[in-house]
Amino acid sequence: MNGGKLLYAQSGGVTAVINATACAVIETARAAKVPVLAARNGIIGALREELIDTSKESRAAIAALRHTPGGAFGSCRYKLKSLAENRAHYERLIDVFRAHDIRGFLYNGGNDSADTALKISEISAELGFPINVIGVPKTVDNDLAVTDTCPGFGSVAKYTAVSVAEASLDVESMCESSTKVFIIEVMGRHAGWIAAAGGLAARKAGEPPHLILFPEIAFDETTFLVRVKATVERVGYCTVVASEGIKNRDGGFLAEMGTRDSFGHTQLGGVAPFLANLVKQHLGYKYHWALPDYLQRSARHLASKTDAEQAYAVGKAAVEYALAGRNSVMPVIVRTSDAPYRWKIEAAALSKIANAEKKLPKGYISRDGYGITAAARQYLEPLIRGEAPPPFGKDGLPVYVRLKKTLVRKKLPRYAVVDK
Amino acid sequence: MNGGKLLYAQSGGVTAVINATACAVIETARAAKVPVLAARNGIIGALREELIDTSKESRAAIAALRHTPGGAFGSCRYKLKSLAENRAHYERLIDVFRAHDIRGFLYNGGNDSADTALKISEISAELGFPINVIGVPKTVDNDLAVTDTCPGFGSVAKYTAVSVAEASLDVESMCESSTKVFIIEVMGRHAGWIAAAGGLAARKAGEPPHLILFPEIAFDETTFLVRVKATVERVGYCTVVASEGIKNRDGGFLAEMGTRDSFGHTQLGGVAPFLANLVKQHLGYKYHWALPDYLQRSARHLASKTDAEQAYAVGKAAVEYALAGRNSVMPVIVRTSDAPYRWKIEAAALSKIANAEKKLPKGYISRDGYGITAAARQYLEPLIRGEAPPPFGKDGLPVYVRLKKTLVRKKLPRYAVVDK
Repeated sequence: MNGGKLLYAQSGGVTAVINATACAVIETARAAKVPVLAARNGIIGALREELIDTSKESRAAIAALRHTPGGAFGSCRYKLKSLAENRAHYERLIDVFRAHDIRGFLYNGGNDSADTALKISEISAELGFPINVIGVPKTVDNDLAVTDTCPGFGSVAKYTAVSVAEASLDVESMCESSTKVFIIEVMGRHAGWIAAAGGLAARKAGEPPHLILFPEIAFDETTFLVRVKATVERVGYCTVVASEGIKNRDGGFLAEMGTRDSFGHTQLGGVAPFLANLVKQHLGYKYHWALPDYLQRSARHLASKTDAEQAYAVGKAAVEYALAGRNSVMPVIVRTSDAPYRWKIEAAALSKIANAEKKLPKGYISRDGYGITAAARQYLEPLIRGEAPPPFGKDGLPVYVRLKKTLVRKKLPRYAVVDK
Repeated sequence: MNGGKLLYAQSGGVTAVINATACAVIETARAAKVPVLAARNGIIGALREELIDTSKESRAAIAALRHTPGGAFGSCRYKLKSLAENRAHYERLIDVFRAHDIRGFLYNGGNDSADTALKISEISAELGFPINVIGVPKTVDNDLAVTDTCPGFGSVAKYTAVSVAEASLDVESMCESSTKVFIIEVMGRHAGWIAAAGGLAARKAGEPPHLILFPEIAFDETTFLVRVKATVERVGYCTVVASEGIKNRDGGFLAEMGTRDSFGHTQLGGVAPFLANLVKQHLGYKYHWALPDYLQRSARHLASKTDAEQAYAVGKAAVEYALAGRNSVMPVIVRTSDAPYRWKIEAAALSKIANAEKKLPKGYISRDGYGITAAARQYLEPLIRGEAPPPFGKDGLPVYVRLKKTLVRKKLPRYAVVDK
């Protein structure tokens, strides 16, 4: 990349550490004296020419991104379709890049974003304004191909494992006369990576969680209830980690099993209350359930240090790749050793990552379908290692930063993003 | 107290720091060379003569209680009724005390436990085996009379404020194209203390949470929806903190508004999904909701240092009071200064605490009913100050302790606790 600016954009669901990547991008570019613009609210802002001038943010504010959750520049759920279907959008992006002398585009997201990045790279060459497009990995779902893990996952994994351990100690204390079944519903609509991480809470065999429900395993009501009952009879209580994506034998999501409110409207109930109700109806045990929802992916206060470091490393590498003139690649995490855990960053072709999906290996789920294997543990455990707490203020709250987000002056006509 | 042993029992819902109190009790008694027994699973264990010999636990294990959540000796929800109704139980307790030479009883709980402690003190004198009964405060509900705050509350308050701040940054990032309304349901069936603590997340006016729903304020659907809509139109999204105890104008709990599952069974839905459904039906906004449930009261990883210190201090004072021959008192926290925040421990008569309930003062809720006042902030903020993280292992999980819980040999006939 010779001259010009970098454009950085966040895409899809945010994480506890995506801003650590943003921090690395800006700090690395500043050190190389390359200006960075950031799209406001992701690709939508790029289309609308809503570009944030990161040079207006103080050094301290950028440094604070390293420990601030959420997406500091805004993100969006907006997938560009094929070049044929969405050609106008792609051309508009190139117009925006040209107008602002953007020579490198860093797109921080998951599978879909890798695909979009690839297409932008293709059309930019075709339209005679070739730019260096770098995908930057991020997703709590841990489902990106090629990379050993995805920045964001390690922290949600740590949050889940710690929460399961803590809540189980609570339930264990009181199970003789109170709650006997505790269900925690975790994210992961298509793959059980986060549910599997809940299994790390059990340092020894027999410790909670006692049952993990994976989206990869068809839910069987009878077996589930037998297992819950046996666990309660054996240890006094039962902790269940349930993926939001678990399905019955017909492939229907349990979360959509159609509970209705008092007016007859269908209500999306969630998996945890559905399971709790099964337990109540068939076993009569007192139950509690938790649904941490966004808390799990924004819990920067409990981030994994490994994850935070990897999030920074991919941002730094992305800038280095762009400045070195690389194109259509993504910095991925390569595990070079399990014990001691060692990793490095390498470039991988976006074409190998776009639209692929990394599944939870079958060998990570125990034979009975309700737990994780030693192989899963060996893979997962290094990812939650280390603590990287944010600074806390005297008032007891973490010191998180909100940026100024000053937009640069627009140079192009208004453009409506209306095909949603 | 001359000679004899102490008996310590945990009562009611456990907290992130109740074991810090247990730690203080045992460490203080050990320093004074006084043996401590602990009831297994609270008062039920005392009735059954299931007494744990704490001398069998190592010094390191007892020290680790200081940072371990849950109730290490087990707790229970079991309220002794009046002396007239439950005389046999009270007499049995005195038999157990006499059989094991227990001369001091430390009962770690809330309002009900203070009442039970008072009655035990009365009947022990009547039956000619007078013992030193000390109530020790504990409850996340913060509803004990006399004491300025209750150990356990500061930590759930900190967890709630931090979680609201973190999840709101997440929602804010994506609100243009995704979730616009986020609802977090918090504990507090009878009083809005925890909901109020959620308000601490807003360091400046206008920051989230935008609406707090208190059990003290009758829920008005129309006004709620108007406020949600206005907030979304003004700032792009709306974070709502809802107490599980909010009621409609007729006094009915919203959480029990009778959603039904597909089989027609009533399903306890929770307040958050009920509110989310209202938002969806009337405003059409995309929503998410979280229900941290036990996670909020067991999150020792995010405990308030102030709270952890106070939990230790009341345990230490309780032993000192018993050894000094005091009876029917509770060590309470007295706030001697707001700025700088200063506190001390004093003895208060159990008769002033038993069965009383400290309500959230009206002056803590803003005039519109949806926020907290400066007075609330002044009261609440010191309680979440400071961090006291547990040690973490190399595996990325906190190092929590499970005790051996060796029971002492029984000396009395079996006793069935069957009047539940």
